[in-house]
Amino acid sequence: MFKKRMNADEAKDLFLKAFSPISETESLPIEACDDRIIAESITANVDVPHYRRAAMDGFAVRASDTLGAGSNSPVILRVGKNVEKGKCVWVHTGSPVPEGADAVVMMEDAVLRGDSVEIFSQLPPSRNVGEIGEDIQKGEIILKEGHKLRPCDIAVLTSLGIGDIKVFRKPVVAIIPTGEELVPRGKKEPGAGEVYETNGLMAAMYIMKWGGASRLLDIVTDAPEKIKEAIMSALDADMIIISGGTSVGKRDYVPEVVGTLGDLLVHGVGISPGKPAALGIINGKPVVCMPGYPVAGMVALYFFARAALRKLGRIPDEPDRTVRAVLSEKIVSRIGYKTFARVKLSNCTAIPLATSGAGILSSVSKADGFVIIPPNVEGYEKGEEVDVVLIE
Amino acid sequence: MFKKRMNADEAKDLFLKAFSPISETESLPIEACDDRIIAESITANVDVPHYRRAAMDGFAVRASDTLGAGSNSPVILRVGKNVEKGKCVWVHTGSPVPEGADAVVMMEDAVLRGDSVEIFSQLPPSRNVGEIGEDIQKGEIILKEGHKLRPCDIAVLTSLGIGDIKVFRKPVVAIIPTGEELVPRGKKEPGAGEVYETNGLMAAMYIMKWGGASRLLDIVTDAPEKIKEAIMSALDADMIIISGGTSVGKRDYVPEVVGTLGDLLVHGVGISPGKPAALGIINGKPVVCMPGYPVAGMVALYFFARAALRKLGRIPDEPDRTVRAVLSEKIVSRIGYKTFARVKLSNCTAIPLATSGAGILSSVSKADGFVIIPPNVEGYEKGEEVDVVLIE
Repeated sequence: MFKKRMNADEAKDLFLKAFSPISETESLPIEACDDRIIAESITANVDVPHYRRAAMDGFAVRASDTLGAGSNSPVILRVGKNVEKGKCVWVHTGSPVPEGADAVVMMEDAVLRGDSVEIFSQLPPSRNVGEIGEDIQKGEIILKEGHKLRPCDIAVLTSLGIGDIKVFRKPVVAIIPTGEELVPRGKKEPGAGEVYETNGLMAAMYIMKWGGASRLLDIVTDAPEKIKEAIMSALDADMIIISGGTSVGKRDYVPEVVGTLGDLLVHGVGISPGKPAALGIINGKPVVCMPGYPVAGMVALYFFARAALRKLGRIPDEPDRTVRAVLSEKIVSRIGYKTFARVKLSNCTAIPLATSGAGILSSVSKADGFVIIPPNVEGYEKGEEVDVVLIE
Repeated sequence: MFKKRMNADEAKDLFLKAFSPISETESLPIEACDDRIIAESITANVDVPHYRRAAMDGFAVRASDTLGAGSNSPVILRVGKNVEKGKCVWVHTGSPVPEGADAVVMMEDAVLRGDSVEIFSQLPPSRNVGEIGEDIQKGEIILKEGHKLRPCDIAVLTSLGIGDIKVFRKPVVAIIPTGEELVPRGKKEPGAGEVYETNGLMAAMYIMKWGGASRLLDIVTDAPEKIKEAIMSALDADMIIISGGTSVGKRDYVPEVVGTLGDLLVHGVGISPGKPAALGIINGKPVVCMPGYPVAGMVALYFFARAALRKLGRIPDEPDRTVRAVLSEKIVSRIGYKTFARVKLSNCTAIPLATSGAGILSSVSKADGFVIIPPNVEGYEKGEEVDVVLIE
């Protein structure tokens, strides 16, 4: 029997409170850190710019020399190699502003005539000059611990001369596929009553996509001792995902074994498909038991395993990619179940996929996304506008 | 001078029409194909299930034997090793339904007493039996050419026994950073007038993130001959990104060189920041010239390089991750410019980042996303609700 069917969000909260994020870090070259989580706040050790920088192509001048200049009354300065009263120097964008100069006249406001230049605009001091530290000041905090690095952040850190960076290591997730009917992919043709193992592979790929490191283990048959052994030898991982054997049938030993080795927090969730999911903690490590039905397993991955991975790896939550669409047909759901209805998108129409159950694997491939129906709602009507969460 | 400032969307359309997607494919093990684009439609070569499959744990029966069974009037069958009139067989979910049986009685509707079982429910034929090909029929098209593979698709293909798959190869993008002020990262400290090269690195990382293969080349100084050489030797790539030298200053040779070697389609775009961006075609290969100012360069990457990469690699467009937020301050933009305003998010508030220009590198790191303002709008008011496109 199920321990007790628990509300989906409550089950997730209970689970996430029961373990801690990992603290170990590693130092990596900054080019390898896209999407990694920084493990220390980064303080600028230099000013950017580290010199007074021309912000425009033009002439570096003493601003006071441009006093009275206007479109009909140019002032004339001599062009040379240093700036002093009555003299100016040609500069490029980004080049140092010479000593003595405190402004840069844009090319558009100047006309060069031989070794003199007519200046048609009066400048205040600092105009078109990037002062030292204007962009980033030495000692300023650039990025805070826990930030997920993007290529643009890596560019900023590189501009500060930072070559290596300390990030949290990726959570290692051990994945144990169970089921005597399973045959490893690439091996012999499955006979009657046999199928290729696919859920473990799917879990391993999603974990990698979401920022974890996957360790896909060998298939374990439906025997409590074998399942126990497999879990015990995987406890050096940060999280364990077990696929299959979570229901209440004769061969469903997984939740019981988890309860023997640790604490079975949840067995039976108000989530559809995915009701037989189970959640537990063994030696402080989170354990997600995915139902063996592929779609139910996938929902358990999305809803529980991803959340747990994010907590473990200190990966900030991010909104899913979603599309607003109008339902072509009504979707029925059961009160008490957070329902993940598969839909196909055609322009801005969401077409519910008729499926006779969670076992219909092909409905996943046909689906572009999920419409998620809260447990207190009985479904959505044809013509309703809904958010479709795209399946990654 | 700029060729002509072109509307941002027109420039993109003109550019995308001027080159073709790549057609070369490669065969890869299916586990390596997450996020890859399939180059052939996939037809099922087997039925799934390939045998009649029990959909429940219970007893396989002849449906006709359950005639008249009800909660108060069980019919009694003998449990054995084969199914015939008056006899049934215990089956697990997923196990083959024995010959002779055409339905499965759920455990919940049966009570086992010794070697007999009381059945409390009358079943129609096929109840709880997954027929051959019910999920996927042999010959059915599972995934169409051009589909971007997700872990759940890979699971479906694996269940069909598919081990390798033909995908389009990743577009190779050569990235040429230009500028005499640039110093390679990890080398000597930059002196006055020098900065570390960061835009090319940023471009390389975004290209990889978006599904391309990056080839980051050596820094080229601001000399037309050198730029020409670098472009010529990169023409075996599928796309070229050149960073810097795109404006109209004395040292800005890039667009001119592109025009000499091929067709300069666009120079000067109604995009802010990013006006000096240029777009061209050389030997049929798209060339994106990113402004050297980091934020302007990033906008050109997001707006032009990503679109070009998707077309080249046949990568389907996908919606950006966005968040709805309320502006804490007004944002001003210029008519005629599609404006990418950087904002920081705090809960559901979008705080515009005060910046004195596209050169302010640190504003990128501080930004969570862009508010994109169309060219026919002058900005958004404080308190307006806007979509914030999260920076990846």
